[in-house]
Amino acid sequence: MAGSSTGSFKAADLVIQLSSSPKIKPDVVDFGTVFTDHMLTIEWNANEGWQAPLIRAFRNLSLHPACSALHYGVQLFEGLMVYRGDDNRLRLFRPILNMNRMTNSAKRACLPAFDQSELLECIRRLIDIDQDWVPHSDSASLYIRPTFISTEPSLGVKKPTSALLYVILCQAGSYFNTEMRALSLWADPKYTRAWKGGTGDCKMGGNYGGTLFAQYEAASYGCQQVLWLYGEDHQITEAGTMNIFLHWINDDGDEELATPPLDGIILPGITRQSILDLTKKWDEFKVSERYLTMAQLYSALKQQRLKEMFGSGTACSICPVGSIVYQGTNLQLPYQEKHSLSSRITTELADIQHGRSPSDWTYLV
Amino acid sequence: MAGSSTGSFKAADLVIQLSSSPKIKPDVVDFGTVFTDHMLTIEWNANEGWQAPLIRAFRNLSLHPACSALHYGVQLFEGLMVYRGDDNRLRLFRPILNMNRMTNSAKRACLPAFDQSELLECIRRLIDIDQDWVPHSDSASLYIRPTFISTEPSLGVKKPTSALLYVILCQAGSYFNTEMRALSLWADPKYTRAWKGGTGDCKMGGNYGGTLFAQYEAASYGCQQVLWLYGEDHQITEAGTMNIFLHWINDDGDEELATPPLDGIILPGITRQSILDLTKKWDEFKVSERYLTMAQLYSALKQQRLKEMFGSGTACSICPVGSIVYQGTNLQLPYQEKHSLSSRITTELADIQHGRSPSDWTYLV
Repeated sequence: MAGSSTGSFKAADLVIQLSSSPKIKPDVVDFGTVFTDHMLTIEWNANEGWQAPLIRAFRNLSLHPACSALHYGVQLFEGLMVYRGDDNRLRLFRPILNMNRMTNSAKRACLPAFDQSELLECIRRLIDIDQDWVPHSDSASLYIRPTFISTEPSLGVKKPTSALLYVILCQAGSYFNTEMRALSLWADPKYTRAWKGGTGDCKMGGNYGGTLFAQYEAASYGCQQVLWLYGEDHQITEAGTMNIFLHWINDDGDEELATPPLDGIILPGITRQSILDLTKKWDEFKVSERYLTMAQLYSALKQQRLKEMFGSGTACSICPVGSIVYQGTNLQLPYQEKHSLSSRITTELADIQHGRSPSDWTYLV
Repeated sequence: MAGSSTGSFKAADLVIQLSSSPKIKPDVVDFGTVFTDHMLTIEWNANEGWQAPLIRAFRNLSLHPACSALHYGVQLFEGLMVYRGDDNRLRLFRPILNMNRMTNSAKRACLPAFDQSELLECIRRLIDIDQDWVPHSDSASLYIRPTFISTEPSLGVKKPTSALLYVILCQAGSYFNTEMRALSLWADPKYTRAWKGGTGDCKMGGNYGGTLFAQYEAASYGCQQVLWLYGEDHQITEAGTMNIFLHWINDDGDEELATPPLDGIILPGITRQSILDLTKKWDEFKVSERYLTMAQLYSALKQQRLKEMFGSGTACSICPVGSIVYQGTNLQLPYQEKHSLSSRITTELADIQHGRSPSDWTYLV
């Protein structure tokens, strides 16, 4: 259990204490409600640095009541899936991008750095131990939640002197718990998700807790999620916890797939990046990171230039948007279940994730 | 332990389990590092409502690793002081304002409502039990930290179905841990504390974790805290975790005490409100809630119209600002230790808090 005052923990130092009472695995359930038998925990403190990683039975955390993760939101997380392929092998999808983003979030939160490949190897070992939990299904997978919190045991807004990095795994059924095929969104400029000079481009907890209230106002309008607007021109930024894409004939008459640029208020989604990479490789239409406003969306809709709008995220993969309540109007968006761009992308990504299409985007467990 | 599915917990249901091993009280220490012997905990869940309040020995919390307070920042807090008067009686300062603000934060965080007077009575009982911890000193006090967190044990951004309200008490020495008499601030528009449509007017954790990074950049410029600016005209909003005041001869030639208005991005500080109330009652100069920009501050400074700038907050009380690093210049602000407006306000507030001046702002424990 030797600590490292500089650098990183090492997967080679991993201590494994297997659970003596494994759970009975339920059928696929709601997203994020049932966890596997084990978890990974790695402690850090300013004096001794990183401690040896530990895989042990899933159990509650014991935290000091002044812990600054609970008072000042000094916390961040990641989310990625492990898929069971048709060949029965387990695959992660571009996990290095999650590790990069986690490193960026940690820097922004003043939490310590670590070696990304060491964390990935520890996660691989955890998945290997709980591998029976990965569903034998094309429509379900196991969700991996790396979490990094300050455990600073004193009050006052300051840099943490202790921290805990932990990883839990849970069953991933449907994220939105809905029978509807396309999402309904509520867009109102009175709530803002993120802003320039803030933390909207990091996966820090504070970005999410402040959105619940708006989400419940959306529900009062019969909508499932919030479409987050920004600025006086009502820029389209994100939807719920997803990045957003428009597939349209743009103002210049060109077919285009467009999503807002990473200007500090947009979360750099892995699915977002993969959609951009995939469609650019196809080279069939223009693919852009550009500002998009509600006025542009509205006029494209009226002029029948809008083909499809969809959200993307790890938990939901790709979700078409069916309607938007905006300024007293319920905008109905075109949506077809088959032969749409979103369904084509969904299939191509799923083929990669399940090993049917060979790709260097997958990482074998 | 009967639960209440609607309404609130009741102080009359309080269960008290005294600690069997009280701590040895140290001399006055850094703010927020040493806690008293007991804590108050009150659990809530969506099925049974509020449970009976419990006062028990101070100890770690046991939290599910998926707890949404740790992932999505569904958390809020309050801060208030208990003072020992010259008459040896213990007093709170305007605690109803803290209860009101806590209720507003809870609504914004989608955490359940409660009866403010019931919580205040539970806190009074907790202080009464740990009363020996309140310093016999005019320069030290005991800090009360009500905290309210989601304990929802599943992933996914959604309204909590369980929560924990708890209160801890700690010794309150100097907040800024400095020998300097006036604060040095760093003002750079590249970081923003809060924004319209966000949660800057609530005491939610996410408002604080995102500020650490800027605070450490401030330190690299030799400054103690960040002066938070907003908008293209560099409005002055807050400093570190304090509200901010200018005492000056304004552009119209009038003596004025001014602080930014509560427009959604400013925390409604209790000390802030008390300074406004107190100085309005004096009726000696203009007292305003108004927008203030760096350009206005700069020209007042150059024209020797600035008398004093100071921050206010519960933890720090009132702190004069001595200098601001802004756009490559280190602005030196006028500051006198005695006979300043800030020292006069500090004395008047301390006289109320310690019972030397009778006031309906105090609440006897």
